[in-house]
Amino acid sequence: MPASLGYAASAPDAALAPIRFDRREPGKGEVLIEIEYCGVCHSDLHQARGEWGNTLYPCVPGHEIIGTVTAVGDGVSKFKTGDKVGVGCMVDSCGQCTSCGDGLEQYCETGMTGTYNGRLADGSHTFGGYSQRMTVKEDFVLRLPEGMDPAGAAPLLCAGITTYSPLSHWKVGPGQRVGVVGLGGLGHMGVKIAAAMGAEVVLFTTSPGKAEDAKRLGASQVVISKDRDQMKAMRGQLDFILNTVAAAHNLDPFLDCLKRDGTMVMVGVPEVAHPSPSVGRLIGRRRSIAGSLIGGIAETQDMLDFCARHGLVSDIEIIPMDGINEAYERMLKGDVKYRFVVDMATLG
Amino acid sequence: MPASLGYAASAPDAALAPIRFDRREPGKGEVLIEIEYCGVCHSDLHQARGEWGNTLYPCVPGHEIIGTVTAVGDGVSKFKTGDKVGVGCMVDSCGQCTSCGDGLEQYCETGMTGTYNGRLADGSHTFGGYSQRMTVKEDFVLRLPEGMDPAGAAPLLCAGITTYSPLSHWKVGPGQRVGVVGLGGLGHMGVKIAAAMGAEVVLFTTSPGKAEDAKRLGASQVVISKDRDQMKAMRGQLDFILNTVAAAHNLDPFLDCLKRDGTMVMVGVPEVAHPSPSVGRLIGRRRSIAGSLIGGIAETQDMLDFCARHGLVSDIEIIPMDGINEAYERMLKGDVKYRFVVDMATLG
Repeated sequence: MPASLGYAASAPDAALAPIRFDRREPGKGEVLIEIEYCGVCHSDLHQARGEWGNTLYPCVPGHEIIGTVTAVGDGVSKFKTGDKVGVGCMVDSCGQCTSCGDGLEQYCETGMTGTYNGRLADGSHTFGGYSQRMTVKEDFVLRLPEGMDPAGAAPLLCAGITTYSPLSHWKVGPGQRVGVVGLGGLGHMGVKIAAAMGAEVVLFTTSPGKAEDAKRLGASQVVISKDRDQMKAMRGQLDFILNTVAAAHNLDPFLDCLKRDGTMVMVGVPEVAHPSPSVGRLIGRRRSIAGSLIGGIAETQDMLDFCARHGLVSDIEIIPMDGINEAYERMLKGDVKYRFVVDMATLG
Repeated sequence: MPASLGYAASAPDAALAPIRFDRREPGKGEVLIEIEYCGVCHSDLHQARGEWGNTLYPCVPGHEIIGTVTAVGDGVSKFKTGDKVGVGCMVDSCGQCTSCGDGLEQYCETGMTGTYNGRLADGSHTFGGYSQRMTVKEDFVLRLPEGMDPAGAAPLLCAGITTYSPLSHWKVGPGQRVGVVGLGGLGHMGVKIAAAMGAEVVLFTTSPGKAEDAKRLGASQVVISKDRDQMKAMRGQLDFILNTVAAAHNLDPFLDCLKRDGTMVMVGVPEVAHPSPSVGRLIGRRRSIAGSLIGGIAETQDMLDFCARHGLVSDIEIIPMDGINEAYERMLKGDVKYRFVVDMATLG
């Protein structure tokens, strides 16, 4: 069994610390991946600290994984030793339900298996990418496009696909004005991708200091969402809004910005519910509020290929594995532009 | 000027009582309609009693109007004296904006003119269908299909189009399971129309006593929404939900009933906001909550023709004009199956 060193939380209030465990030998249709980079998602922090109440300990987080295939099991047809690959938020699903059949494994009706904290049939649970290596079903492995920076690509496996999927599903493109709410890990990818899709992007932020950066990333306009006059000027102007803010906030001023038949898609789950949105604002212009969860495997490959064609990766700050606890503290203060990525060569 | 007798509220706490006023002579492109029937919508009561805070007094309610053209102004091309016609919730719109251009006058960007309580350029306001006659732009007049019962048709102009428009826009049809929440004036038309469109209809109600009637109207299944087990059994079963309940209620158990990519459309504005819906339930299955407002003029004609083809009208109870105050009290108790319609021959 391939041994692996990793970083784990052993309890909600414990700092992440080294852990040794075994990965399984790659079985039929599985590959062993030597992990090179792993992005640090806000979910990692929530899960490690037990903030969603469902954490299985020890918890090895990490679902923005880039590495190299070092061994393949029987019957593997898509990958060979030496291939540069990625793994995102899921490593398995039922394969039988309508959603799996539609290539939307993230909506698997019996529940997809998370890359970490996913419960397995034998009672154990999955360990994620804060580790040296992992064994994954090839059907849940993505191909890193030729020439793409592997460290910058890691966050695409969660932050990239979470924003690409709704932008693609709701057919964002040229001739449209699209709002992106929030400029964090998700929002900065939302701006890049929506702009690359040809839309005119309006970035909403509470922080005037982010305006310049938003424009560098591809926004054509920045609206300070606390400024009533700026918000009023945007009323009825947008075809679509991607709302990446998970903290509870008033949705109504954003609904007002949508044209008739416009949709605002939420990709973050708030810990405390948002104030109840106005039904009248939905009715008055036939607007919608929708939700979207990461993306399917085929769509994730499309996203990587799309980003490669457009020269997009995440803006990142590379950290050593033993810097993870400090990185969590900085993430809580919003002090990251825009994603921490662990260089796994620093582990062990 | 054609004189008209009508029924008006003179103040929020005043019972409706007779009022005499003049209608304008039909001008260019306008027709004069002798009103035969007018449906009684819950909005009439809200507006007459000033419950939305924007009532202009005296208030002559009524926007589910059926009558006969008795005079036509210059340039009228669609109607002639003797035609059986209908008028719904609007009598004018800007005609210039994108929504008007798209035939969706109800979403007019400068605001459509309501059939009653609509502000006019000269500072006066519109009087509705609780009256003997009215003058209307022919572009806002509908043709009553041959052979359709005029009294039963009246409520189609609001309750019919408000349910038909979202069912049609979201492409409800054969092979789909569709939920209708609430069995009042709107809900009973929602059941009839969704069933006529070929969908399998599930009616949600808090009243077990309504089950038999719901099936007579076209529902194939009735779910008592207070019964947790019945609600649980419907999880993930529906393609679409038409929610006709305006009273504040928990939307989450209904969201749970939607399949992946399902939409719940709200057509009623609650006086107190619904509890905030769960963003997680939207994200987990890419569901949407949307709103929809009545329907455009061309679509309203489509609805009337659709109902005529399928032999649908509203279930009604005909009342005399001087029974309106008692009807309002009964409506508040839900004691109507399913719409009161005033026989205007009883007026004057």
